[in-house]
Amino acid sequence: MADGFEMVATMRDLGKKGTLEAAAGEALGQTLTVAQLDVCSDESVAQCLSCIRGGEVDVLVNNAGVGLMGPLEGLSLTTMQNVFDTNFFGAVRLVKAVLPGMKRRRQGHIVVVSSVMGLQDPQRVCLPPILSGVVFNDVYAASKFALEGFFESLAIQLLQFNIFISLVEPGPVTTDFEGKLLEQVSMAEFPGTDPDTLHYFRDLYLPASRKLFRSVGQSPQDVAQVIVKVISSARPPLRQQTNARYYPLMALKAADPSGSLYVRNAHRLLFRWPRLLSLVLRCLACSCLRTRVQPW
Amino acid sequence: MADGFEMVATMRDLGKKGTLEAAAGEALGQTLTVAQLDVCSDESVAQCLSCIRGGEVDVLVNNAGVGLMGPLEGLSLTTMQNVFDTNFFGAVRLVKAVLPGMKRRRQGHIVVVSSVMGLQDPQRVCLPPILSGVVFNDVYAASKFALEGFFESLAIQLLQFNIFISLVEPGPVTTDFEGKLLEQVSMAEFPGTDPDTLHYFRDLYLPASRKLFRSVGQSPQDVAQVIVKVISSARPPLRQQTNARYYPLMALKAADPSGSLYVRNAHRLLFRWPRLLSLVLRCLACSCLRTRVQPW
Repeated sequence: MADGFEMVATMRDLGKKGTLEAAAGEALGQTLTVAQLDVCSDESVAQCLSCIRGGEVDVLVNNAGVGLMGPLEGLSLTTMQNVFDTNFFGAVRLVKAVLPGMKRRRQGHIVVVSSVMGLQDPQRVCLPPILSGVVFNDVYAASKFALEGFFESLAIQLLQFNIFISLVEPGPVTTDFEGKLLEQVSMAEFPGTDPDTLHYFRDLYLPASRKLFRSVGQSPQDVAQVIVKVISSARPPLRQQTNARYYPLMALKAADPSGSLYVRNAHRLLFRWPRLLSLVLRCLACSCLRTRVQPW
Repeated sequence: MADGFEMVATMRDLGKKGTLEAAAGEALGQTLTVAQLDVCSDESVAQCLSCIRGGEVDVLVNNAGVGLMGPLEGLSLTTMQNVFDTNFFGAVRLVKAVLPGMKRRRQGHIVVVSSVMGLQDPQRVCLPPILSGVVFNDVYAASKFALEGFFESLAIQLLQFNIFISLVEPGPVTTDFEGKLLEQVSMAEFPGTDPDTLHYFRDLYLPASRKLFRSVGQSPQDVAQVIVKVISSARPPLRQQTNARYYPLMALKAADPSGSLYVRNAHRLLFRWPRLLSLVLRCLACSCLRTRVQPW
């Protein structure tokens, strides 16, 4: 990780810390500590922060997130609220906890990974930065849009306190977790959903999503490197994309103020021209587009 | 309202229906019914829909929303969650309830008023459509961003069922409600907030916000007319702005991919150059900019 920092890496289930500790090597116990944290619990947030040496957080990296895919009709309100409790309110809880100290010291940096698992999340890379919805990821996309709205609002005020906010915006990130989730949802029943919608989800969306991850997915290491760069920057950017391979579809959004062009073409590609979609995904994966966004 | 529709207008507290019934005139009981609905309650949504003749909703207009202004430190998680429960999950509840019928009939239109009270909500009118955060309205802006992400995602799927989604995006809307809220928050204590933040909120933000409403606020009737136009359209737009007087600041967002330029200038205008901000607001209110967006 970045030099000169004392890091506290957190996870909900400390039983899974083995891989992280092995990767940490000599840093473990020196500049890296692993601590328990459930971002959905006020008590857990307070407990975790109380264990930090000096009690001061200079840089907060919000990375906790869960995905939710599937037809809306088959998802309960409680399931959707839980996604918001982790993806959105988890970050809010942590920010509320560290903000008074950062404001007092007139110094701080809050980094938000707006899409930790990046399930078909092409919204993060267009220029200018225009968010986009993702079919069958309605609630997940909503939680990410919410993060962007919250932190962009807060960033204006926090500049007055010399505190910076950076939204790190990955596209699809290829992890074990994403593979398992895609498998789980392909078996899920989504009770109350009509057969047509189920067919579109299982037979059109899921195969396209798998292809997307295979063609343009990044590794978590790629994203981590961007985070290190952002927190080491003297003048951190508000937004930092990590993957620049989605321009063609996104250009439709920039071209049409009503957003209809993007929605209509996303619909056509998925529902009517799946072969063209495959071709587009192959083109996106082509080496001529394999350039990383490095705007500063 | 639009010709040819049978309307069910809903409100949480039927005790307040007097003004609406008086305005409805002869339509009351003929093409307009007033019904009780609390969008935060699954039971209330089911009860309201069960009373609709034929049980079928052709056009759903989501208009329920609450505002939340003030320093983050002084707002509880519960208060924030309640804002999401009305502004975001309220719309989700209704959509989940009407969607199976619309899909069965291969017909429907869902209109979302993304900002019913439009508290300093300049994000809605730039071209191309770029959302923007609003200082001291962090959670409110987040809930509106969430609506946009949710409905843009859903729109892609629903085109396959001949169901349209339209996001009607007003700027500031001048109502009694907004005046009362601005007065309430100017007296509120926001416990746990440092004196500097309170000063910025009360002495810089609130006066600027009042000026903004006075200079560019629209009437609810203006917004209603746009909704009628949208639901009468043969090819409804995904987004429809109602007020075109914010371009200057928003142009900064389109000009800078990282979003930093917008945040920095919004910060400077509010915190450093309040006189320039007043001048900008007077310019925005000038008749030469008083053109309504009519993109179709």
